[in-house]
Amino acid sequence: MVADDRVTRVRAVLDAVRAGGRTALTAPEGKLLAEAYGIAVPGEAVAGDAEEAVACAARFGGPVVMKIVSPDILHKTDAGGVVVGVEGAADVRAAFHRIVADARAYAPGARIEGVQIQELLPPGQELIVGAVTDPTFGKVVAFGLGGVLVEVLKDVTFRLAPVDAEEALSMLDSVRAAEVLRGVRGRAAVDRAAVAEQIRRVSELVTDFPEIAEVDLNPVIATADGAVAADIRVLLATGTPKERRRYTRAEILASMRRLMQPTSVAVIGASNETGKIGNSVMRNLVDGGFAGEIHPVNPRADDILGHKAYKSVTDVPGEVDVAVFAIPARFVAAALEEVGRKRIPNAVLIPSGFAETGEHALQDEVVAVAERYGVRLLGPNIYGYYSTWQDLCATFCTPYDVKGGVALTSQSGGIGMAVLGFARTTKTGVSAIVGLGNKADLDEDDLLTWFGEDPHTECVAMHLEDLKDGRAFVAAARATVPRKPVVVLKAGRTAAGARAAGSHTGALAGDDAVYDDILRQAGVIRAPGLNDMLEYARALPVLPAPRGDNVVIITGAGGSGVLLSDAVTDHGLSLMEIPPDLDAAFREFIPPFGAAGNPVDITGGEPPATYEATIRLGLADPRVHALVLGYWHTIVTPPMVFAELTARVVAEFRARGVEKPVVASLAGDVEVEEAGQYLFERGVVAYPYTTEKPVAVLGAKYRWARAAGLLGGRCTR
Amino acid sequence: MVADDRVTRVRAVLDAVRAGGRTALTAPEGKLLAEAYGIAVPGEAVAGDAEEAVACAARFGGPVVMKIVSPDILHKTDAGGVVVGVEGAADVRAAFHRIVADARAYAPGARIEGVQIQELLPPGQELIVGAVTDPTFGKVVAFGLGGVLVEVLKDVTFRLAPVDAEEALSMLDSVRAAEVLRGVRGRAAVDRAAVAEQIRRVSELVTDFPEIAEVDLNPVIATADGAVAADIRVLLATGTPKERRRYTRAEILASMRRLMQPTSVAVIGASNETGKIGNSVMRNLVDGGFAGEIHPVNPRADDILGHKAYKSVTDVPGEVDVAVFAIPARFVAAALEEVGRKRIPNAVLIPSGFAETGEHALQDEVVAVAERYGVRLLGPNIYGYYSTWQDLCATFCTPYDVKGGVALTSQSGGIGMAVLGFARTTKTGVSAIVGLGNKADLDEDDLLTWFGEDPHTECVAMHLEDLKDGRAFVAAARATVPRKPVVVLKAGRTAAGARAAGSHTGALAGDDAVYDDILRQAGVIRAPGLNDMLEYARALPVLPAPRGDNVVIITGAGGSGVLLSDAVTDHGLSLMEIPPDLDAAFREFIPPFGAAGNPVDITGGEPPATYEATIRLGLADPRVHALVLGYWHTIVTPPMVFAELTARVVAEFRARGVEKPVVASLAGDVEVEEAGQYLFERGVVAYPYTTEKPVAVLGAKYRWARAAGLLGGRCTR
Repeated sequence: MVADDRVTRVRAVLDAVRAGGRTALTAPEGKLLAEAYGIAVPGEAVAGDAEEAVACAARFGGPVVMKIVSPDILHKTDAGGVVVGVEGAADVRAAFHRIVADARAYAPGARIEGVQIQELLPPGQELIVGAVTDPTFGKVVAFGLGGVLVEVLKDVTFRLAPVDAEEALSMLDSVRAAEVLRGVRGRAAVDRAAVAEQIRRVSELVTDFPEIAEVDLNPVIATADGAVAADIRVLLATGTPKERRRYTRAEILASMRRLMQPTSVAVIGASNETGKIGNSVMRNLVDGGFAGEIHPVNPRADDILGHKAYKSVTDVPGEVDVAVFAIPARFVAAALEEVGRKRIPNAVLIPSGFAETGEHALQDEVVAVAERYGVRLLGPNIYGYYSTWQDLCATFCTPYDVKGGVALTSQSGGIGMAVLGFARTTKTGVSAIVGLGNKADLDEDDLLTWFGEDPHTECVAMHLEDLKDGRAFVAAARATVPRKPVVVLKAGRTAAGARAAGSHTGALAGDDAVYDDILRQAGVIRAPGLNDMLEYARALPVLPAPRGDNVVIITGAGGSGVLLSDAVTDHGLSLMEIPPDLDAAFREFIPPFGAAGNPVDITGGEPPATYEATIRLGLADPRVHALVLGYWHTIVTPPMVFAELTARVVAEFRARGVEKPVVASLAGDVEVEEAGQYLFERGVVAYPYTTEKPVAVLGAKYRWARAAGLLGGRCTR
Repeated sequence: MVADDRVTRVRAVLDAVRAGGRTALTAPEGKLLAEAYGIAVPGEAVAGDAEEAVACAARFGGPVVMKIVSPDILHKTDAGGVVVGVEGAADVRAAFHRIVADARAYAPGARIEGVQIQELLPPGQELIVGAVTDPTFGKVVAFGLGGVLVEVLKDVTFRLAPVDAEEALSMLDSVRAAEVLRGVRGRAAVDRAAVAEQIRRVSELVTDFPEIAEVDLNPVIATADGAVAADIRVLLATGTPKERRRYTRAEILASMRRLMQPTSVAVIGASNETGKIGNSVMRNLVDGGFAGEIHPVNPRADDILGHKAYKSVTDVPGEVDVAVFAIPARFVAAALEEVGRKRIPNAVLIPSGFAETGEHALQDEVVAVAERYGVRLLGPNIYGYYSTWQDLCATFCTPYDVKGGVALTSQSGGIGMAVLGFARTTKTGVSAIVGLGNKADLDEDDLLTWFGEDPHTECVAMHLEDLKDGRAFVAAARATVPRKPVVVLKAGRTAAGARAAGSHTGALAGDDAVYDDILRQAGVIRAPGLNDMLEYARALPVLPAPRGDNVVIITGAGGSGVLLSDAVTDHGLSLMEIPPDLDAAFREFIPPFGAAGNPVDITGGEPPATYEATIRLGLADPRVHALVLGYWHTIVTPPMVFAELTARVVAEFRARGVEKPVVASLAGDVEVEEAGQYLFERGVVAYPYTTEKPVAVLGAKYRWARAAGLLGGRCTR
């Protein structure tokens, strides 16, 4: 069957359904779709006489179910009209006659249209395959194990449709009970390719027909020889989703470059009055040391903080890259007209009082003006943004000037303030901090597109509560991840999807389950909480990428070694099996009662030389890919001595081109805090009073390295 | 059947098994045990003739399986000797004759002993019920759902044996797939009482017969009408476990009181030489301000740090409560003899060089001396201990003097140093810090027994890698938890149980799974990591106990509100459904675009008065039981203004007798750190840059409150 033909056939069915004013397809209509797309369903036919029945049964090749077909008989079983498991010509023939005779006896006047012959499915593993239309990500396919696993334990996985064969196959390994499909309790493994093919074909169907809202193959019966959908349920969408305006990558990069690397900034609503937002923004721009032009706009002032003020932005001389708005919401639209006329590409809308306070019309009006002039909007309802390498602080918050590799964005202003405080206290090196607020226009995918290209940015960390366009975000993430890690804190995880769902798959597709799978699929590192996001943002740019899976723990404290091993397992890392020659090499440096193996326990009483010798060994051996250090504060090796030697050895190896991630857990009195900061500033991620955090960060770096394809293999779950 | 009778019957079976040199019982032997203990198994009998067969089948009441019994016929099926699903006298009779006839035809010379009649189990839910002998906890019963759930997902739960009916029943709710037992997919719920009864009876069996190492009922078939074990497997232990010496509660308290509240301390190996452990210990005792007597013991000194030195501890005048050892391992036994002769009840063994370095004989020798004289040992291989309310610092580490409510213990010295540093930097109020090291004698249950009674201690936090006697620990925890929380960091979680297991249940009882269930059952709060343990230890004594489940979030930042809600769900807490009158009351204080409901979003621009009014409302309303505050740093309400008003309002309500736990997440610039410390010191648990930690701590407090019976209900999972 050619593709066009199948589309035509399905189109005809769907048109008929629509014409009938229905949104749910009947079982036979569902089967027509399945057949058109090669979705395996049980063979089925209506036989008008006994010989036709025999021929049908022979075609299906195994036992069949036979059912009377009559518009006048509702309760087929009562009428003796159902026989299960008939096999062989003689039995089929006999059953046909008996069914018809019983039906006649049961309802003498009934119209009898024939006997339905249906392939009897063999016993096998029940699966569920489906597709839903996610409000964020659009068409999404789902796969899970049927029965208790999916219904009680919600063991189900999602992918963006369409999926290719390999991606469909990866879904079989992404459920918790994946082992079942490979055969347990003496059962044979299921035909994985056949299951994957069912998923792939469902994904094609919903991709070709956006009006199909949900598809449910439930159950799919999978055996060693194939996978057949016992039932197919199809629902059509009741409305059509609004198409979102899209920008090309080149357009996004052009406007984002002028936003993040401006040479001229206007401040609309700039003020000389302390306490006003327009004053804070001006002061931060000036005090922050921005080297470009700063143009205050205020109809009632001539000069603001030493800069000539203009009555209107249209009076500002030359090209302007960014207009920062610090005026009340109700004046924004009019001022934006002037920004548009001045052909300024970016408007940063600090004011609140738009959609977030219920003023949707006001926000729509502003968006309409922006679209008319092609002005891109950041906000409204934001604190502004920082572009540290430009010394640009276009916000009413306090300036931030530690230049570095991480770009942070937040949907919420409160979270933005936490980002700022955390970054300042930890001296996190930052390339940008951007508030997104209501996201009337610019959103995470625009920013990600830019940060992916920005040479100053080595890691992107984003707090978000929703995505306006999940697919655009996934595309931007996929383009970025091979070059730099993307960390996402998705808030609202546990707000169980309150969405009404008409199908089984729909009910399983709680918002967070879909987000979780799709973000992972996009190679994003999902932070479990705010502090994790902040720590990852601080630490990931500091650590080099691992080149392999072998993690070695070197510890002075046996107790830390045990906890670090726990953390290594918790974060999906692998403790290296130490080869005998390396083991022997470690043993040369540690006391006889110390333990080699992994963790390498050098014991607590050892001098700096033992730490140094064993760390050198770990860095020098090419089979070791990452080091986790467990430092124990003693008189013999005080914290700063350990910090100095570790930083020195790591720097020495890096200078030689040997770059391995090294993290450290520092157990000791308060001096370990200074040691931790010293190490962090020198490329060793070190934390006091915790065995979990250093390993969590290393785990995040590994997740990224896997997603970026640096370690081989494909990331599933 | 009377209890004595069942014991006698089982004893006879086990003796016969032992006499036969076996450890595994045969199926019929297993059935004898099951019958003796009322564990339901399928009815089974051997019929010598057809009428006996009919009578048997009638007794079982449903369809039966019939099998030839002949020592000469191995392949029963080949001989036509097995018929499944026979029902009714006529069919049973006919089957009997056919089986015997077929067997005669198949093997003419065979001895035929009769036909086995076996009850055919109905289809139902497969379960697994078992018991194992855990090296730490002894007899433990297990329960799980059979098939994939238990084999692939390890969905199984454990309890100490014996269990009573209520505890057995609680196990049915402690598996992840608990819902299945209540009926899903149109299936009826299982007979819960019958399942619980199977568990209870297995627990009785293994309790009565310690030599039974493992019992496996696998599967148990549960239906709406009962639960029957299709198969029972019993294994006997190959050795007998060493009985550990036990002390009475009064004995433990007597020696612990003298250890923790001593009036006279001797330091064996006290030294004037800086850098020596015996010097550090002396200095810390003196500088720490210990008000009791300090007696250095050193044969080569007359005076140490202004205290008269003695050649031998036996020369010290008066009673001595504690002898602190700061001499090399090889001299310990001899010095301990003198301690024993001096009748000093406690020896604190700082030296290493015992079991941890392979010197087991040396440690055994020391333990033998201690047992001979009734001296209790702390250590060896420890940093010593602090008893802050006594100004006692009997350790070589730096002194610690912030008196407070938490007692901390650690098995590892490295972790002890992390405890000290963390406590110092956070100003955690401490009642004791104790190193346990090799635990040659004193261990967690001794300490817990003391801390439970100690009026200075409001919370106990313990790092441990193993328990010498799990049952003694559980008993001590159960006695303590109703009065104060017990936090445990169990290290070595992920070291998958490498124990050889002969049964199914045995294979499932990985060390950590058992620890996890039993610790929860004991009411212990398990900390997931080191930093969590430290934070819980710091915060739990600060928070009052909640009196009910209703948690209300009041937040200035909507973004924090979403993340705090996530955390509330993650930590098993309940967001209160705000009643309409309370909702209306909140609305009076917040802007019209703010959100009442829960979180109560007062919005970011609000002045201190709004925070104060809404916090007052939450504290005043008796339906609200706990508050989670989300502060957002603004110019209008700076961090210290928020901190001051919150602390003041909370104190005011506490003075009036209204004590509710209040925690806060502080989003803002670095000033929030000072605000957090200020709040913490005033009974509000507040953290900067995190929405998870304050809620995690509140969650820990709730877990304790539930375990302590303050909230009603029983804690399962």
